[in-house]
Amino acid sequence: MKSLLDKTLSEIKPADKRIEKAAWKRLDSLTKPQGSLGRLEECAAKYAAARGDVFAKVAKPAILTFGADHGVAAEGVSAFPQEVTPQMAANISSGGAGVSVLARHAGAELRMIDIGIAVPCEFPGVINRKLAKGTANIAKGPAMSVELCRKALEVGIEEAQKLIEGGSTLLGTGDLGIANTTPSAALYCAYLGTSPAETVGRGTGVDDERLKHKISVVQRALDVNKGSLNSPLETLAALGGLEIAGICGTILGAAAKRVPVVVDGFISGAGAVAAIKMNPAVADYCFFSHLSAEAGHVNAMKALGVKPLLGLDFRLGEGTGAAMAFNIVSAATKIIQEMATFAEAGVSGKE
Amino acid sequence: MKSLLDKTLSEIKPADKRIEKAAWKRLDSLTKPQGSLGRLEECAAKYAAARGDVFAKVAKPAILTFGADHGVAAEGVSAFPQEVTPQMAANISSGGAGVSVLARHAGAELRMIDIGIAVPCEFPGVINRKLAKGTANIAKGPAMSVELCRKALEVGIEEAQKLIEGGSTLLGTGDLGIANTTPSAALYCAYLGTSPAETVGRGTGVDDERLKHKISVVQRALDVNKGSLNSPLETLAALGGLEIAGICGTILGAAAKRVPVVVDGFISGAGAVAAIKMNPAVADYCFFSHLSAEAGHVNAMKALGVKPLLGLDFRLGEGTGAAMAFNIVSAATKIIQEMATFAEAGVSGKE
Repeated sequence: MKSLLDKTLSEIKPADKRIEKAAWKRLDSLTKPQGSLGRLEECAAKYAAARGDVFAKVAKPAILTFGADHGVAAEGVSAFPQEVTPQMAANISSGGAGVSVLARHAGAELRMIDIGIAVPCEFPGVINRKLAKGTANIAKGPAMSVELCRKALEVGIEEAQKLIEGGSTLLGTGDLGIANTTPSAALYCAYLGTSPAETVGRGTGVDDERLKHKISVVQRALDVNKGSLNSPLETLAALGGLEIAGICGTILGAAAKRVPVVVDGFISGAGAVAAIKMNPAVADYCFFSHLSAEAGHVNAMKALGVKPLLGLDFRLGEGTGAAMAFNIVSAATKIIQEMATFAEAGVSGKE
Repeated sequence: MKSLLDKTLSEIKPADKRIEKAAWKRLDSLTKPQGSLGRLEECAAKYAAARGDVFAKVAKPAILTFGADHGVAAEGVSAFPQEVTPQMAANISSGGAGVSVLARHAGAELRMIDIGIAVPCEFPGVINRKLAKGTANIAKGPAMSVELCRKALEVGIEEAQKLIEGGSTLLGTGDLGIANTTPSAALYCAYLGTSPAETVGRGTGVDDERLKHKISVVQRALDVNKGSLNSPLETLAALGGLEIAGICGTILGAAAKRVPVVVDGFISGAGAVAAIKMNPAVADYCFFSHLSAEAGHVNAMKALGVKPLLGLDFRLGEGTGAAMAFNIVSAATKIIQEMATFAEAGVSGKE
């Protein structure tokens, strides 16, 4: 019997090119100079093609924020102590974190999922899908086994599909995990061929010396794991983290059901790159929400050939960028649904 | 007796720096690394300082879209015929235009104001404040008299203040007027010292030859009017348009009541620059919504020292960019109102 992961990967198909063409035809008939709503029009056509319906509407948008801990925190790569992970999980689920406020503002449901926080995290609203008490130190060996990574991907698939069964047609991803910019940077290097120096950033705020140290930690992670990077899945297991795998799984699960996903910033982007490496058609279902202030994000997105929608200099994660970009994607779908055509409005065209 | 314009100009005071400082103190106490919500935090502090209240909320956001015609259209600077201005005014007020859809999406009221459309424009919902049947050809002389320009500014002030009396605490501006990128470019050149070649763009879509022609028209406008550019008001009268003056007045009227304004793109930006030249404290009340795909906008915003919030490649005007940026400003205010502090949430700080 096929595993849920393999079944999901085999179900992911490219978006519908005919619908994309029909969406552009509709967009070009609307009362505006052609293309003058810029990236909003691109989003409208992409959403329509993903959903297979020119007039597809956004329903029940939801953000999945995965939390986990990282053995590599022991290398001193973060400015915050690891005890912050469960504290912030509680804050997110009780409504006081950045993503709580911005998801509420966007009218989106927010699910805080503990997929691998190192300590018990039994707070009201935190969904317990804990697979392990964090991952091992990637500077010394693989973060986790391929089997554990597969399980984390399947948690992501299941959590996405629960929301989709409930009627969600737009998902967003978010992350929580002290030190998680380090495994994310390592994943970008491994998947996209960027160097640690151009991919590592300051995370939540490390100084020059710690930045240099962080670069060397990523390089060590790539070196010690170089025998374990033979497939996208192996690479994710060796260099990733449980929340990154959960995010990757969410993207795969959504793409399999033709539901677009708004990818948050640096960490979620690493999960998205892993998903795209597992099945390139996944790219048809990804909106990249914002260009993080994390320096490496600019280089990684360039290497991936992607131009994120927003440039608000966020470097918080949690899904805050995804929450902000929901507004753009849903505005885009309304353009195609609600704007009048030149013929309908009796407006003259170009001379 | 002081005119409404002079009274308004004298009432505009800089935003409250103490409140701005208090807002930053609050922002720095919230459960996120300091500054990690980037430009959202800047917007939050700016809105608070403008309103004079750290916890100021956005209420009844509204967009004022001013429509007018331009004698310079006779020079063949636009790809669309002038008959489009009233047709689009009707389309905007009946809900089918880009700004209609995006204002509705933003939960904002939309007012379509005819301040100088060349032909009768009696459609339901179009507010009739027509002062003239368009302006004269700026390539041959001044667009309008200083007296007419003052009247247009006062229409803008009055329309803004009606909304503010009704409870609006955030306004947005928009424009409608075939050929209006040409006077806007001329205004940027006169106010900011940029050259026509770096300020003129393709508007709604002119080809290479027409672009060259447009640059020469702007240069002619600057040359023939060079004796009439002795004050910000005279410059606006000579090179502007009635809708641009209406937008400028709206910004002045709002700033006088400490109500921030979200400035749309290229044309509204020219109105904002005029307002800032009349009273530099106006800048404390302006949010620049998006960087237009109009090439000259990049140079003009650089010359003004401003980095717009969004980069969605819009080149439609109407207030579409302002409508999209409302979401950012209102999200920003919620950050400051609704996020928990480190102390409230029991989250540990930086090590």
